[in-house]
Amino acid sequence: MAPATRAECLAADAADPLAHVRARFHLDGARIYLDGNSLGPPAAGVQDALERVARDEWRGGLIGSWNQAGWLDQPFRLGDRIGTLVGAAPGQVAVTDSTSVNLFKLLAAALAWGRDSGRRRIATTRDNFPTDLYIAEGVAELGGGQVAEHLDATTAVLTLSHVDYRTGRMLDMPGRTQEAHAAGALVCWDLSHSAGAVPVELDAWDVDMAVGCTYKFLNCGPGAPAFLYVAERWQPLLANAVRGWFGHAEPFAFSPEFRPAAGIARFLSGTPGIIGLAGVAAALDAWEGVSINDVRKKSVAIAEMLMGRLDRLGLEVASPRSAAERGSQVSVRHPEGYGLSRALGERGVVTDFRPPDILRFGITPLYLRYADAWDAMDALESVLAAASHQDVRWRERARVP
Amino acid sequence: MAPATRAECLAADAADPLAHVRARFHLDGARIYLDGNSLGPPAAGVQDALERVARDEWRGGLIGSWNQAGWLDQPFRLGDRIGTLVGAAPGQVAVTDSTSVNLFKLLAAALAWGRDSGRRRIATTRDNFPTDLYIAEGVAELGGGQVAEHLDATTAVLTLSHVDYRTGRMLDMPGRTQEAHAAGALVCWDLSHSAGAVPVELDAWDVDMAVGCTYKFLNCGPGAPAFLYVAERWQPLLANAVRGWFGHAEPFAFSPEFRPAAGIARFLSGTPGIIGLAGVAAALDAWEGVSINDVRKKSVAIAEMLMGRLDRLGLEVASPRSAAERGSQVSVRHPEGYGLSRALGERGVVTDFRPPDILRFGITPLYLRYADAWDAMDALESVLAAASHQDVRWRERARVP
Repeated sequence: MAPATRAECLAADAADPLAHVRARFHLDGARIYLDGNSLGPPAAGVQDALERVARDEWRGGLIGSWNQAGWLDQPFRLGDRIGTLVGAAPGQVAVTDSTSVNLFKLLAAALAWGRDSGRRRIATTRDNFPTDLYIAEGVAELGGGQVAEHLDATTAVLTLSHVDYRTGRMLDMPGRTQEAHAAGALVCWDLSHSAGAVPVELDAWDVDMAVGCTYKFLNCGPGAPAFLYVAERWQPLLANAVRGWFGHAEPFAFSPEFRPAAGIARFLSGTPGIIGLAGVAAALDAWEGVSINDVRKKSVAIAEMLMGRLDRLGLEVASPRSAAERGSQVSVRHPEGYGLSRALGERGVVTDFRPPDILRFGITPLYLRYADAWDAMDALESVLAAASHQDVRWRERARVP
Repeated sequence: MAPATRAECLAADAADPLAHVRARFHLDGARIYLDGNSLGPPAAGVQDALERVARDEWRGGLIGSWNQAGWLDQPFRLGDRIGTLVGAAPGQVAVTDSTSVNLFKLLAAALAWGRDSGRRRIATTRDNFPTDLYIAEGVAELGGGQVAEHLDATTAVLTLSHVDYRTGRMLDMPGRTQEAHAAGALVCWDLSHSAGAVPVELDAWDVDMAVGCTYKFLNCGPGAPAFLYVAERWQPLLANAVRGWFGHAEPFAFSPEFRPAAGIARFLSGTPGIIGLAGVAAALDAWEGVSINDVRKKSVAIAEMLMGRLDRLGLEVASPRSAAERGSQVSVRHPEGYGLSRALGERGVVTDFRPPDILRFGITPLYLRYADAWDAMDALESVLAAASHQDVRWRERARVP
């Protein structure tokens, strides 16, 4: 049940099984932060972790830390930890590169796999996250394939975002995966807006490949290394076109012949970014003992409360009403969405805007309280009453990531 | 003139115009560090820089720091700074991704460029850095090209490492670039062992493209973001296959159509790794006021001193004798090279080993003193005298990056 008054919000916060997790984050950068779906805040342990990697490991151990501090295995150790949040058994997730580069690698692998059987197409939808479209086109162009909007016997791989970045619409991952398999194609899901936000069961849902971002709901830091998932059954059958030494079976044999590593390691390319990975490790510590089902339950309750208030303000909710079709955000469609976001910012409520007209409220139950979300709606109400969103200062849009 | 005694080394250190730069690094991790060609040590400002980015920028500014803290422009600002060390005018270098991924992007761009004119081959040599070979093959395989060992009318691009990672042999960059151009091909140089190590003049030598590593002679941290260079004249003509939103002309317009950014930005892919880039910035601060010609002069003097002593120890110098053909390292070929490296390590002298039989002494004049190099040779002498390198413990090789 969603709380319907501020008092009920306070009661929900008092009873919240995740209430203690908030202290694991530094949240003094904003009064109310509803933009954790764009950039999560730092976990309290991040600064110590960065100091430790720079001082004890890099400065103290120098080159020896590749072995002694476990740098070599860090992409896989962290991958397994992310795996627990997306339903992947160990050995199938690696933390490496950016989401874009990882998507390129997996789509290229699928295209190469499909060649022998005449499968030259990457299927996706035009409303997919723009970068995913660019990457699909880049792979297709280089690899002599095409991007298409339908599934058929020429499809090598279907790639979709699980949760839409604008509206928060969530696709039926098991269902769409089955459809792709029925057409003989692989799937590659982009989990950027679902890892750490909603329950995902990659193994159980028979997913073949996935990529995802770690700096949104996983709070791993601006541009932190991303992750990729390749189901164990596919690992020996897929090749990495961006094959660097860290994907080699024996990276330090320096052989001129490439021999892919067994397992997920073959999807690595260059040297892992150890400083960035230290931030990932510290951020994942904040998930200790957290149940993604508790996260989801709180997220849905906050979303329903938000939508109730938005309805009463007469605003157009752009997100699906059914929780089963919605990720962990609520969006408003408004011609002055940009001005609304800026005016809310002036009141200490951080949200963001996506062109042409989407105002997003990201719901991040690890640190967002029911009362915060309630107060954000109060702020929105006063912005609308004062027409602060129509201020001439917001006529020109800043560059907003 | 290379110093010939320890007293002369001390005198050379006293007169060294770079002597004051050593204090800009933390060097307590090893008595004598001759492995800066594998992983440079941290600059003294690194910890503060990491604290600043995590606390003031990420924690303090949250999402707003993309604009207010200048995160968006960081890849280019840092790229221009590296540009000053490799002879590239502003606007041609970006710090992004790994060396492997960057090489993939540039070779793929060259292959696509060559398609219309029947140039489907990537030329390289079999003794190139193994990862560069793997990447070239990966690009060729996906892009329907081939890797070849000669230049002809079918060559799209010649890719070579400027300095060989084993022997330190340095190629004639202007000469080989001219040869490639005479064959109608582009060049893409790998500067991993030359940026910050030897004078490089990318613009003056008419180089088309280059990539390089920042964690060796540039000291930017383990797996730190790498760099890429595309000469201004080529930027509008080459396309990035790994096209992510940060390479778009208007990343935050979220258009489904890719429109490449003007300039070097089009070679970016995903979101820049801001924490890693903060380490790059701090490391580049240590180059303030440093002349690469002073670095080179000192490097050559130390190399000559080392080779003199190695000769007297009866060891086989694997590096070219002529400074013009040698980068900033001296290598020894020895069947027990691995044992030598480990036994030296026990004496506080850090070097490394490259299979099958190469012991490397990296020369890093920003912080390496003449007397350090001299003392390392004393340590080597006592290792040989005691036959410590033949210790049974070194029979089995550890994984060494």
